[in-house]
Amino acid sequence: MESSFITTLKDATVGDWDAIKKGNFWKLVLGHTVTPELYRDLMMEVYHYTKHNSRNQAACAIVDAPEGLLRFVYHHAADELGHERMCLHDLESLNLLDKGALQKKTLPATEALIGYLYYVSFKYGAMARLGYSFWAEDVYEQIDDALSKIRRDLSLTDRNMTFFVAHAKIDEKHIDQVTDCIERFAKTPEEQALVMQVARTTIFLTGQLLEQVAALHAK
Amino acid sequence: MESSFITTLKDATVGDWDAIKKGNFWKLVLGHTVTPELYRDLMMEVYHYTKHNSRNQAACAIVDAPEGLLRFVYHHAADELGHERMCLHDLESLNLLDKGALQKKTLPATEALIGYLYYVSFKYGAMARLGYSFWAEDVYEQIDDALSKIRRDLSLTDRNMTFFVAHAKIDEKHIDQVTDCIERFAKTPEEQALVMQVARTTIFLTGQLLEQVAALHAK
Amino acid sequence: MESSFITTLKDATVGDWDAIKKGNFWKLVLGHTVTPELYRDLMMEVYHYTKHNSRNQAACAIVDAPEGLLRFVYHHAADELGHERMCLHDLESLNLLDKGALQKKTLPATEALIGYLYYVSFKYGAMARLGYSFWAEDVYEQIDDALSKIRRDLSLTDRNMTFFVAHAKIDEKHIDQVTDCIERFAKTPEEQALVMQVARTTIFLTGQLLEQVAALHAK
Amino acid sequence: MESSFITTLKDATVGDWDAIKKGNFWKLVLGHTVTPELYRDLMMEVYHYTKHNSRNQAACAIVDAPEGLLRFVYHHAADELGHERMCLHDLESLNLLDKGALQKKTLPATEALIGYLYYVSFKYGAMARLGYSFWAEDVYEQIDDALSKIRRDLSLTDRNMTFFVAHAKIDEKHIDQVTDCIERFAKTPEEQALVMQVARTTIFLTGQLLEQVAALHAK
Repeated sequence: MESSFITTLKDATVGDWDAIKKGNFWKLVLGHTVTPELYRDLMMEVYHYTKHNSRNQAACAIVDAPEGLLRFVYHHAADELGHERMCLHDLESLNLLDKGALQKKTLPATEALIGYLYYVSFKYGAMARLGYSFWAEDVYEQIDDALSKIRRDLSLTDRNMTFFVAHAKIDEKHIDQVTDCIERFAKTPEEQALVMQVARTTIFLTGQLLEQVAALHAK
Repeated sequence: MESSFITTLKDATVGDWDAIKKGNFWKLVLGHTVTPELYRDLMMEVYHYTKHNSRNQAACAIVDAPEGLLRFVYHHAADELGHERMCLHDLESLNLLDKGALQKKTLPATEALIGYLYYVSFKYGAMARLGYSFWAEDVYEQIDDALSKIRRDLSLTDRNMTFFVAHAKIDEKHIDQVTDCIERFAKTPEEQALVMQVARTTIFLTGQLLEQVAALHAK
Repeated sequence: MESSFITTLKDATVGDWDAIKKGNFWKLVLGHTVTPELYRDLMMEVYHYTKHNSRNQAACAIVDAPEGLLRFVYHHAADELGHERMCLHDLESLNLLDKGALQKKTLPATEALIGYLYYVSFKYGAMARLGYSFWAEDVYEQIDDALSKIRRDLSLTDRNMTFFVAHAKIDEKHIDQVTDCIERFAKTPEEQALVMQVARTTIFLTGQLLEQVAALHAK
Repeated sequence: MESSFITTLKDATVGDWDAIKKGNFWKLVLGHTVTPELYRDLMMEVYHYTKHNSRNQAACAIVDAPEGLLRFVYHHAADELGHERMCLHDLESLNLLDKGALQKKTLPATEALIGYLYYVSFKYGAMARLGYSFWAEDVYEQIDDALSKIRRDLSLTDRNMTFFVAHAKIDEKHIDQVTDCIERFAKTPEEQALVMQVARTTIFLTGQLLEQVAALHAK
């Protein structure tokens, strides 16, 4: 049985995703034929923040935390290491990879997401960052319709979408661990408010990342 | 005569502000009678990030920087210290201050702005943070029409707007120093790209802060 | 065949340990009957820094590093997690554990060692911290005579020395990985000088930790 | 009238300095004719940590602190900025400056002192760092006999010792501010224990810096 905080957190994050799905990215993807350039620009931003997710997970260790939570942190960081290479693989499999573009600055929302997550690690530590993992490891049910439309429009196979296919599998295991960690370690109202704050702030930034990618392809 | 990078930076930040002024906050403020509650909710978010601006300015010293730039950093940090109290003063002068609300979590965009600026400080250092100061110290010409409308609708005097009145004055001095520091210290394309990245990311987050305040009062 | 930098590093660390072994801790342990109180005070300091070693290893991820080095960092951090409990177990097995003392401040050298290693993590990152692991994972040949004397004087069995027995085994594996990482990732003279600096600074602090423990029991 | 914690702190730091004055640096300086090379090697280490003292003072702002304490931090950081240039000036006035040596690694104790103070800044914040300022701003009465002997042996004038002459004056003002800040802001036993810990750890490292300089010139 879910704890009442987990239910509250789930409701808030689902609500925030519902709002994102009323935005321009969803309109563009569902209402128009997806272009290869849109997929490329999306995957480049995903590449950029994914490159940092393993590192900002491990960096949480700078803040004191219970041993059980640190153990999750280390394993989770190790599980995510190098996943950004899947983004490049997927783009390369479609002849969409522009290696010169890898050095370019990201969109503002992506930069803010990367920076905010290091701040969470360094200032709040492992427990707070669970608020990000809580929804991010379970995001596939939220984005399924958009991903399916992209796959169909671009005739993609699993081989062209290794990042999303692999993550959907890995993350099944993670989401139970994350929920368990939140239930064990975020007990006080202050701790739970912090987990909620990190969850909502990171969803907000991710939603804006999608909006900013969409804006590059505004119809 | 302005350097060409300063011109590029100015154009980009003015362009980003123009986009914000086409958003819901401006529509709400200019198109409807401003309520005291809107002003209160705005000033509470301003209070929250202002409380951190002096600190994340000083914290830049953790990254190596030229002596002249560190000197600017320390004086700037000292100049901004305690300015969040003006927000509280202004709200109190209108009987709008709810002291219990001071402990509440901020809106996601405010939280992201605060966190991102600490990240800029400890990861990039003083030079990069000039990108934020560059537009923030000069923001009064951007927000003048909205502030005037708020002032008129709520019959505010200077005594109820000490935060904005005082800052407009202090910042006149700062903007020249900031421009001078950027010209002296951000020389290479990489350094200038970083200043630009921080400028655009912080404008983006500030624009979203305004949108999220507006969303609380959607008509 | 060892690379010439590994040889230089090995020579420097052996030389620094030889100097430590001419100090008061070795005189006290080898020249007098070791008291239970000396062993207790030693293990309490070991407990304190060990509690942080896993965390400051993982925290290195805040600084950019090659994927192979990050993978070592995460596994190493996971391997060391919770090892401070062995110190407590060993003291408890001898009825020497004073739980109230766990909250007390450490000796200055221990505090400096803990703080310096977080600084190395946060400022220099994973490659620099290899300088610490290089000698620490291989320290058993340096301290063997002192440990044997302690064991004999106090009639200790492996069950009373789990920390040292377990570590000697675990670290056999680590030292090859550490040497390999230094050879792969510390290539330039600047990188090698940094690894050397961290190695010598952490040996110096560890030597002082032993001197300060000895000073508590000066004959 | 001094508070009882200030008295305890003063006694501890004076006791620790008394121990340093029984060490090899004092023996070398007071018992032998001081060589220019000893003065040079001492001033180079002073140069290295002084270069960081202003920065690690300002960096404390990353940790939450009362406004009055932050104000002290910013002014103190500004007062100390650039003081390392006095060390270079003093060496140059004696033709003892080897500019190539500025890039060399410091002695282990100096490196540990620099690193530990950044750790204090970003982990403990401004209040804890007062423990360092407490004795460092008042160190001239401790080192007066050694400085006088150096001055006499090398026939130095104030012009060759600007670092020490200027600091002795500036620091007269600081020590009262530091004492006042400790009395106002370090109230609980935990806070006072932290100030004490930082005081003793930094004296220990400074004492070792002197020992390591002396070891370079062992007779």
